[in-house]
Amino acid sequence: MIDLYTFTTPNGRKPAVMLEELELPYTIHKVNISKGEQFSSEYVAINPNSKIPAIIDRDTDISIFESGAILIYLAEKTGKLLPTEPKKRAQVIEWLMFQMANIGPMFGQLGHFRNSAPEEIPYAIARYEKETQRLLGVLEHQLENNEFITGEYSIADIATFPWILISPYLVSVDQYINVQRWIETMRSRKAVQIGMAILTPEFSSNYGAVA
Amino acid sequence: MIDLYTFTTPNGRKPAVMLEELELPYTIHKVNISKGEQFSSEYVAINPNSKIPAIIDRDTDISIFESGAILIYLAEKTGKLLPTEPKKRAQVIEWLMFQMANIGPMFGQLGHFRNSAPEEIPYAIARYEKETQRLLGVLEHQLENNEFITGEYSIADIATFPWILISPYLVSVDQYINVQRWIETMRSRKAVQIGMAILTPEFSSNYGAVA
Repeated sequence: MIDLYTFTTPNGRKPAVMLEELELPYTIHKVNISKGEQFSSEYVAINPNSKIPAIIDRDTDISIFESGAILIYLAEKTGKLLPTEPKKRAQVIEWLMFQMANIGPMFGQLGHFRNSAPEEIPYAIARYEKETQRLLGVLEHQLENNEFITGEYSIADIATFPWILISPYLVSVDQYINVQRWIETMRSRKAVQIGMAILTPEFSSNYGAVA
Repeated sequence: MIDLYTFTTPNGRKPAVMLEELELPYTIHKVNISKGEQFSSEYVAINPNSKIPAIIDRDTDISIFESGAILIYLAEKTGKLLPTEPKKRAQVIEWLMFQMANIGPMFGQLGHFRNSAPEEIPYAIARYEKETQRLLGVLEHQLENNEFITGEYSIADIATFPWILISPYLVSVDQYINVQRWIETMRSRKAVQIGMAILTPEFSSNYGAVA
């Protein structure tokens, strides 16, 4: 049994999609970051960085934070969605890192300056709009000749999808036709549909239940 | 033989430190990002995201971008600096991700708004100063009871060190006494000294040479 500590953000949905794909039983613990629950001493003991998501694997008593680390851990636990062959493995991990170090932080900054900052700062909005468009262009190019990001479906797709789904709220995305095709492919997966709905009234799963 | 494409930035120094620790022969290819060389068609074929570093392992014909992915690849190639025991392995990967998704991007934004932005934007500077201090506090707490970030020396230390070395240029760091102790421990390692000096006149290595 996996305890999943999470909320309805792009990073928070990644482990739910992964657990649904793996058909692993899990218990969902809502950490409401809009109420600051990630700063409670209980939660800081699980994630010293006070961010969601985190998991505790009760089978092994291993606790893990950072969504990218959770995906690697679950892939290695089950032998799924992260190849062991060195070349394919390197590709999945580099594109996972591309999401973790680029798409996540930069889309996140654009979201902040667009929606949350108390003043409008045109320079910052333009900076992160440009980088968001550039990153979408890199992904578009990668998907030109690949059904999934590295060819076969992997944790790189699971990590990237929830962030790409919010991109239309940040920038114009019509020109990224391969990204749009990939979104539809991802959306057609039952595990993705269920995992993305975590903590919403529509959520219904054979594997996960809210504590 | 490893071909290393890099420049004198925190991310660019990580693989050099790693290759020195592993005593693997490597050839250094300078990609001068201040001249935009990362956007050349030759380099984009190696890293579609137009960032340094990247490597090509000529032994296996595997090409890898994203510094975090390079560290994992080299660790798995050699069986060093990334444990196979699941709990220790999860800790190293979560702290590697903590650097890749938090310390790198956020310190980088502070550096931009402090040093490179064409106008002074107090809100942005304050935003990233606060986050940089928070992240240093998380690392300080982790190092209170650990000689290295996860106990034993690992790729998490190699990834984090070059970014922490620039932190005094960004914020006041005097209060982070365990971070300071860890910096001195890291600095005492010969491989760290050599790898950090990559592409400077002081660089001298038994393993790496500039092409």
